Amino acid sequence: MEASPAPAAPEPRPRRTGYRRLPVQQRREQLIAVALELFASRPPEEVGLDDVAEAAGASRPLVYRYFAGGKQQLYEAALRTAADELSSRFALRLSGTPSEQLSAVLDGYFAFVAEHDAGYSALLRGGSVVETARTSAIVDDVRREALRRTLRHLGVREAGPRLTLLVRSWIAVVEGASLSWLDEGRALPVSELRDWLVDQFTAMAAATALHDPQTAEVLAGVLALEGPRPERAERLRAVLGGGS
Amino acid sequence: MEASPAPAAPEPRPRRTGYRRLPVQQRREQLIAVALELFASRPPEEVGLDDVAEAAGASRPLVYRYFAGGKQQLYEAALRTAADELSSRFALRLSGTPSEQLSAVLDGYFAFVAEHDAGYSALLRGGSVVETARTSAIVDDVRREALRRTLRHLGVREAGPRLTLLVRSWIAVVEGASLSWLDEGRALPVSELRDWLVDQFTAMAAATALHDPQTAEVLAGVLALEGPRPERAERLRAVLGGGS
Repeated sequence: MEASPAPAAPEPRPRRTGYRRLPVQQRREQLIAVALELFASRPPEEVGLDDVAEAAGASRPLVYRYFAGGKQQLYEAALRTAADELSSRFALRLSGTPSEQLSAVLDGYFAFVAEHDAGYSALLRGGSVVETARTSAIVDDVRREALRRTLRHLGVREAGPRLTLLVRSWIAVVEGASLSWLDEGRALPVSELRDWLVDQFTAMAAATALHDPQTAEVLAGVLALEGPRPERAERLRAVLGGGS
Repeated sequence: MEASPAPAAPEPRPRRTGYRRLPVQQRREQLIAVALELFASRPPEEVGLDDVAEAAGASRPLVYRYFAGGKQQLYEAALRTAADELSSRFALRLSGTPSEQLSAVLDGYFAFVAEHDAGYSALLRGGSVVETARTSAIVDDVRREALRRTLRHLGVREAGPRLTLLVRSWIAVVEGASLSWLDEGRALPVSELRDWLVDQFTAMAAATALHDPQTAEVLAGVLALEGPRPERAERLRAVLGGGS
């Protein structure tokens, strides 16, 4: 008999063989991991608690003992786990020039997107059956953390509204690009998307710098760290006309 | 007695005075207009059918005769009406340089956002009680229409994946900027946001042109239409370093 996380009726003896006894925390993590795997491969409306139980080698009542709120609760727990994992990727200490650091964060992000695939897509696309004010709040937390970490990487203590809008907008572009990438069966190479997004950051910062001294200062600082003649900025200048 | 849109029990005699008899189509449009006004001022969960009935000077049963599915059906009808109105704004024939045209479309867009305020915000933010796969599909239709119209304005017949991603991304930036604008009590002047978004388009196109010959061609064409030395592009070049 598995230990119960809360006072509950004894778990019925499993009818099928192969059920494994796991400690409470380990079982909970296993159920969430199994759920994340299922939500990654199918839209949430096609994943049932029975599927999770079967894939976890557990009974349906056991899953309910851990997640009394059923599928919705399990979904939200899984989402929270995935959100924490993603946020932790933003916190990595990185070396290299600003664009090398941004590239590394984006590689981690696309690896996360690839791993969570259908679940990521359903959640961000909106209108999913499992979407609630709570799931939206979890997603917003991740966006806020991405904003906070990006500003910190840029060395900004207090961002004004224009710089905040720039970073938020760029994060929205990253999300949109990752959704398009999944939609199109991952046809574009990740390395190209990543480089495109790094260039977008520079370009969007430049457009914002025209309207905001704080962003102009941050951009100048970033370009200085890229080296004496930042190649990406040079190429952007060239494509805007008049040679480089 | 008001004409009924479908076989239904006779409308109960209104208890309050001031009820007006309206033709079917006109009544339907009035209920939708009233609903849009209410959804613009409060989150959808705080708007009830009784509020709509009262504001329309109609009885609750009358509202149900037009919208048998209750609030959700009324909400979706209102959303469809708003979506059609927004899409029609993209279809306007415009004159001037590309950036003047883009500015005019953006002015129309921000006027729409200002008018629909809370309803616009709740819908795009996700997790609203009235959000369903159907409402998400309506929003996606508008985005698709915005994409189609933008590509047409740019003179593009068949957009490759990179050019499509650019325009989609820019549309996401416009949406995000309008949400931030509402969030912050419309603190930033619309004219500044509009100019920022026009500059973003040029900058994002430049970043995409580095990775895509089709976008490079479109950007060159747009810049040529702006004049012999497009001022906005010059300023972007300057802020990217090395003087203009």
